[in-house]
Amino acid sequence: MLDRSHFESLDQEDPLAEMRERFRLPPDVVYLDGNSLGPLPAHVPGVVESVVEQQWGDDLIRSWNTHDWWTLAARVGDRIAPLIGAPPGSVIAGDTTTVCLFKVASGARALRPDRHVILTDSGNFPTDLYALGSVAEAGVAELRVVAPEEVVDAIGADVAVVCLTHVDYRTGRRHDMAALTDLAHRAGALMVWDLAHSAGAMDLDVSGADMAVGCGYKYLNGGPGAPAFAYVNPVHQGSFVNPIAGWWGHADPFAMETSFEPAEGIRRLAIGTQPIISLVALDAALDVFDGVDPSALRAKSELLVDGFIRLADERLDGFEVVTPRRPSARGSHVSLAHPQAVGIMAALIARGVIGDVRPPNLLRFGLSPAFQRHVDVWEAVAILEQVMEEEAWRFVAAPAGPVT
Amino acid sequence: MLDRSHFESLDQEDPLAEMRERFRLPPDVVYLDGNSLGPLPAHVPGVVESVVEQQWGDDLIRSWNTHDWWTLAARVGDRIAPLIGAPPGSVIAGDTTTVCLFKVASGARALRPDRHVILTDSGNFPTDLYALGSVAEAGVAELRVVAPEEVVDAIGADVAVVCLTHVDYRTGRRHDMAALTDLAHRAGALMVWDLAHSAGAMDLDVSGADMAVGCGYKYLNGGPGAPAFAYVNPVHQGSFVNPIAGWWGHADPFAMETSFEPAEGIRRLAIGTQPIISLVALDAALDVFDGVDPSALRAKSELLVDGFIRLADERLDGFEVVTPRRPSARGSHVSLAHPQAVGIMAALIARGVIGDVRPPNLLRFGLSPAFQRHVDVWEAVAILEQVMEEEAWRFVAAPAGPVT
Repeated sequence: MLDRSHFESLDQEDPLAEMRERFRLPPDVVYLDGNSLGPLPAHVPGVVESVVEQQWGDDLIRSWNTHDWWTLAARVGDRIAPLIGAPPGSVIAGDTTTVCLFKVASGARALRPDRHVILTDSGNFPTDLYALGSVAEAGVAELRVVAPEEVVDAIGADVAVVCLTHVDYRTGRRHDMAALTDLAHRAGALMVWDLAHSAGAMDLDVSGADMAVGCGYKYLNGGPGAPAFAYVNPVHQGSFVNPIAGWWGHADPFAMETSFEPAEGIRRLAIGTQPIISLVALDAALDVFDGVDPSALRAKSELLVDGFIRLADERLDGFEVVTPRRPSARGSHVSLAHPQAVGIMAALIARGVIGDVRPPNLLRFGLSPAFQRHVDVWEAVAILEQVMEEEAWRFVAAPAGPVT
Repeated sequence: MLDRSHFESLDQEDPLAEMRERFRLPPDVVYLDGNSLGPLPAHVPGVVESVVEQQWGDDLIRSWNTHDWWTLAARVGDRIAPLIGAPPGSVIAGDTTTVCLFKVASGARALRPDRHVILTDSGNFPTDLYALGSVAEAGVAELRVVAPEEVVDAIGADVAVVCLTHVDYRTGRRHDMAALTDLAHRAGALMVWDLAHSAGAMDLDVSGADMAVGCGYKYLNGGPGAPAFAYVNPVHQGSFVNPIAGWWGHADPFAMETSFEPAEGIRRLAIGTQPIISLVALDAALDVFDGVDPSALRAKSELLVDGFIRLADERLDGFEVVTPRRPSARGSHVSLAHPQAVGIMAALIARGVIGDVRPPNLLRFGLSPAFQRHVDVWEAVAILEQVMEEEAWRFVAAPAGPVT
């Protein structure tokens, strides 16, 4: 049986332990929802104060030049690039993950006009399915949704684009990015990845894929609703058509020309003026990863997930671990199925262990290697054990509303 | 000849004079660029600090419920609605102006499938022309661009959608919203307005129009790149199809269904998770308009513009006033044409008068009734007169980069 000292030892040996100091986490909380909203990096309030008071308040319109707001989206993209294995000039921040997916999937579909299927899987996050439905409708294509385990066999000669989320938001199941990208390419299709539940939690290599998107507010800790990011492989940038032409994507925005000519390179992914305060917060939050090797994030993530699953096996009854047990087949959160998931999570939150639930029966525990302590895993399972012993979930009202 | 005391008297009689106290404006600056980036409302830094430190930092994921982030986009929309003459439940904030225009114009085009023309004018802001080009391409329509004065005659039986910007970003020329909306409707077309250079500077009535969009960072003072807004007339909300389906626009987002069912009402305009910090800043900035009658904004705006043009006529040589002289035909900024516009503006900015330029030869002076003093008009023209007398524009380098 694992005991608390095992997790304390892991923390003592953790090469990333000091990263936690870069965050401001509330005391008396075990925060296991960094996969939904990453916590506040400690220096971000000062940076946000500065962009509001000095840059907006004092310098006003001049800040577009003097504080280089104009290039911020591409600069933030270049900071995200090494976290996903992308080269400089291939990533741009901005818009929402859904809009980014609409853009890159539309662009991918247009590059394979002779094929009529956009392939995805039913484990995809719903907004991806909805946006891909819009892409299919606009692009006169069929959206084909298969079970995650059927994707391999469904990549046929009629497939224009395969679009998958790398890590399943419910189960934590992870697709094999290299193998599926290779399979798509052999079939003549383009490969688009959604890295919402991956970027910032593990080493990634999208350099062989065609396009990708991801989320700024989960493992990248960019703040609530932080701008998303989009990647387009440099080989496609010259021919990529943005389905929403806008002035930020124009070759010469301030020429104010009546006709659209797309910018060279990744800036053609841009559309309109971005929310600078939120974008500055994301930019600052990325400082947390300065000097951090993504493979070290992955190594710690595997230890955290492994510890959580082993404790669940040893100490919990009536829960099913739905996250795959093979490390290469999972991401950085653990999901447990239980019929009373909603009440159990409410009881956990009341005791300071913050995870979330996904209907109808999944408890999710995000394990972000950037700030999580191994002993957090021990604490969380110990308190979960208490909740079950005391049947505390019977006495706690369900949360008043949705938790995103 | 007008003198300084005339403008001082106007300030003394100004019923909106105390609104200026709601802003934090730098000393020694005459800020005439509120039509491009509105200044900082004095209470916004505290609100932003609170959303960052308490809501994000302390309350973390729970803030989606406890601080009601989830409904913020619609609540901000309901605060903008009275400023544009829209009923509750018809406006939602979020995304960029360009994305909002893409959404509403696509939705409008789909409601007139039997017609094939999207009509706009060449005075429209470039991003509108680009986005409408994308709408036309996706909707198998023709984008027809005519001169502003030719719009009336171009609204024919083949026109599905007329999409115009109310106030021209260069000249300040204003379209007659009621007349053109009526004309479009008589011809069987739908009418879409871009209110980027109108909302927050004048009373508006979009209630007869079909759709509209606008900008959060100009006269609404929501901060750099603040989220935009979109209006859909309630009569169209049931049949409106968002061209980018996303989870925030789903009838039941947290059911996490694989198929898309649009929300009832304006929320179907939503797509993905919005940048909360920037959206909270916009929400707070709207406090500035609490208790303010938009028609009082318009009355003050007319006085400001009239004063500027009269002074320009009296005191400036070599400039052409390109802004219409008839009050009902213009918005809230004044544009002067001069061959040395770029150098002149650089010299003005060096002396603390901040306007901007639009290539090749326009100087723009925004006159936001929310914070402008009448004496600012006097100061600006007096300093411009000095710049010309001293030929100071010869000795100032052009700005290093674009000014948005």
